[in-house]
Amino acid sequence: MKRPDGSLTLADYSARHFLWQVEDRVATLTLNRPERKNPLTFESYAELRDLFRALPYASDVRAVVLTGAQGNFSSGGDVYEIIGPLTQMKTPELLAFTRMTGDLVKAMRACPQPIISAVDGVCAGAGAILAMASDLRFGTARSKTAFLFARVGLAGCDMGACAMLPRIVGQGRAAELLYTGRAMSGEEGLAWGFFNRLCEPEALLEEAQAFARELAQGPTFAHAMTKRMLHQEWSMGLDEAIEAEAQAQALCMATQDFRRAYQAFVAKEKPVFQGD
Amino acid sequence: MKRPDGSLTLADYSARHFLWQVEDRVATLTLNRPERKNPLTFESYAELRDLFRALPYASDVRAVVLTGAQGNFSSGGDVYEIIGPLTQMKTPELLAFTRMTGDLVKAMRACPQPIISAVDGVCAGAGAILAMASDLRFGTARSKTAFLFARVGLAGCDMGACAMLPRIVGQGRAAELLYTGRAMSGEEGLAWGFFNRLCEPEALLEEAQAFARELAQGPTFAHAMTKRMLHQEWSMGLDEAIEAEAQAQALCMATQDFRRAYQAFVAKEKPVFQGD
Amino acid sequence: MKRPDGSLTLADYSARHFLWQVEDRVATLTLNRPERKNPLTFESYAELRDLFRALPYASDVRAVVLTGAQGNFSSGGDVYEIIGPLTQMKTPELLAFTRMTGDLVKAMRACPQPIISAVDGVCAGAGAILAMASDLRFGTARSKTAFLFARVGLAGCDMGACAMLPRIVGQGRAAELLYTGRAMSGEEGLAWGFFNRLCEPEALLEEAQAFARELAQGPTFAHAMTKRMLHQEWSMGLDEAIEAEAQAQALCMATQDFRRAYQAFVAKEKPVFQGD
Repeated sequence: MKRPDGSLTLADYSARHFLWQVEDRVATLTLNRPERKNPLTFESYAELRDLFRALPYASDVRAVVLTGAQGNFSSGGDVYEIIGPLTQMKTPELLAFTRMTGDLVKAMRACPQPIISAVDGVCAGAGAILAMASDLRFGTARSKTAFLFARVGLAGCDMGACAMLPRIVGQGRAAELLYTGRAMSGEEGLAWGFFNRLCEPEALLEEAQAFARELAQGPTFAHAMTKRMLHQEWSMGLDEAIEAEAQAQALCMATQDFRRAYQAFVAKEKPVFQGD
Repeated sequence: MKRPDGSLTLADYSARHFLWQVEDRVATLTLNRPERKNPLTFESYAELRDLFRALPYASDVRAVVLTGAQGNFSSGGDVYEIIGPLTQMKTPELLAFTRMTGDLVKAMRACPQPIISAVDGVCAGAGAILAMASDLRFGTARSKTAFLFARVGLAGCDMGACAMLPRIVGQGRAAELLYTGRAMSGEEGLAWGFFNRLCEPEALLEEAQAFARELAQGPTFAHAMTKRMLHQEWSMGLDEAIEAEAQAQALCMATQDFRRAYQAFVAKEKPVFQGD
Repeated sequence: MKRPDGSLTLADYSARHFLWQVEDRVATLTLNRPERKNPLTFESYAELRDLFRALPYASDVRAVVLTGAQGNFSSGGDVYEIIGPLTQMKTPELLAFTRMTGDLVKAMRACPQPIISAVDGVCAGAGAILAMASDLRFGTARSKTAFLFARVGLAGCDMGACAMLPRIVGQGRAAELLYTGRAMSGEEGLAWGFFNRLCEPEALLEEAQAFARELAQGPTFAHAMTKRMLHQEWSMGLDEAIEAEAQAQALCMATQDFRRAYQAFVAKEKPVFQGD
């Protein structure tokens, strides 16, 4: 729902191609076609892109949990609904498709809410990309994350993978995962820094939501700045990054949340942040 | 052998300063002066540079395995044949030398074939650089990888090491290895992401070749694009990298290998890739 | 003391806001207000910045050890002496402050001496930044490193953290540490590449000093070049980095230390480096 000041509320958003639920200002987005392990389709890509593009204007969502229904995260682009049609397309249509999927990742990185992926079971192809494009990832020991583009005759350079994966797990490990498409186990993902934590499957979503809730109750203006600067400084020189942070942090020091934290400290209380 | 369309075949290339063998479109390049632990010389540098520069035009090589003879990878620049003469050179000659060694690394990163280094025993100085400049590295528990430039009075910034090593093992570990020249053990190399796998010494070369063979039988146009984009996106902004990948992947979606994979999937067969 | 050729000596520098001691050309800088866990103040920030800015001209310091007194590294910006006043400042004053703290990090990265942080106990906020901005970090099992800016309502983008921390521990782990401000244990820091080594608390400073002494006795012109190029190549393309290293290493090949190393090797002696 659009409000007069240009902001939106998304708690009442009716998703068509996935589940969307907002509670305590934490949105949980569940890919939900479990009989096919939650694949992506042209329609779900487009809706995801539009929703993540709306999030910068949403006043009622402070963190996002991304997950899949019934024990799998996502099997990626559906073989029959995406790969088949792609094999019939002309060059401009192909580029329109790869740009749309790339736009989804750009929107995930540009929205101010931290995104926590809760990854169980199959996390493959574009599904692995969505996990990678999140800010944090909680996995399970039985999760299998595979950038399996090579298995369908494609390159590992999909939706930013050649830029992002090396920065998460290191250049050598990323090369292996991208060339081979082999599955990374949960244990590997934890040891390599892909996963921030491994959870029991039945506790996974709850832990991710609890983590997201904590972020949502934190200084969300500052969190959004952290997210933006992690993006902004991707290819900056170090001196330039330090100046950029001087400006960004000075903005945060002008917020009420900074004052609230100080006053709470002095009063030996727990600060109550409000995101402004 | 040069062919009318400008492409080359390299299966019959007669190497002068190392061993070169092509089988199943996998080239195995063996540094082969085991009595000195396979050092590099001015001549072998130049031949390596020229060979890696020819590889983009080679139609009969799809992956490269780089290794050393008889239990060592390489001891790096030979003390008597390289370091001695360098101490006598004038500035323009020194720069010509460091540029030539750098050109070898540039050629390794620019050729479309994935390079797998099989590293046993001593892997030192310029030898460690060649391993680092490969796409993947298989090691052994007894391997000793040392960027030992500091030990001969030089800086760690040799042939791209200050750019590449931090992206493989992290900035802090790279700093220690480059400042001190101390040997990284096989176990450390595995834990830090320098090695993709540790093998038994007697199985090392075979495992690296088997891995390379699998890549060579895969979608090699796509693999080459993965390699190129890992290079190309080194210092791109993330949004620009995503657009670059949209273009690169659209190219791959126009290949026959992509169709072959889809048709094989539908027919429940294993795809047979041909690299076009 | 300033000398006619523009160089300085810093062995006799009288520090006002911390301890400063030079021995064997290794400077040990000890944050020393143990009753408050060695916090930083406006004055100590400014003195640190000025001292690190003087180090490029110091002829008698070849490596720096940074530590804290009595079992803690540093608690960061003092709540009463820094955070309180900041909550009262106007925008230009805030930016002047964040730029000053950023200038300290720039000076730490620009000085030619490698910096080894010896981190025990609390290492928090700006304290964690100073450890991160060092070249190497030795920790202890009981050390607790927390980028706790979020806890005081601020962003993780402080003094270059969003640029540096991902390159040290990986993008995913850095995101968690910066969003939450939670403490990284010594074991985590070692496994993630933040710490180069964990030491027993009572041996920590000694080990860091011994390591620094070894660097100080090494080819310090070359070490300074290693440090400079690690900085310089932060956001360079890989081919450009390789050319930059060809130039930098050619300079090092023109030094006497390179000759000394060769001659010592030939004579089967240990080289005695002099830094020129």
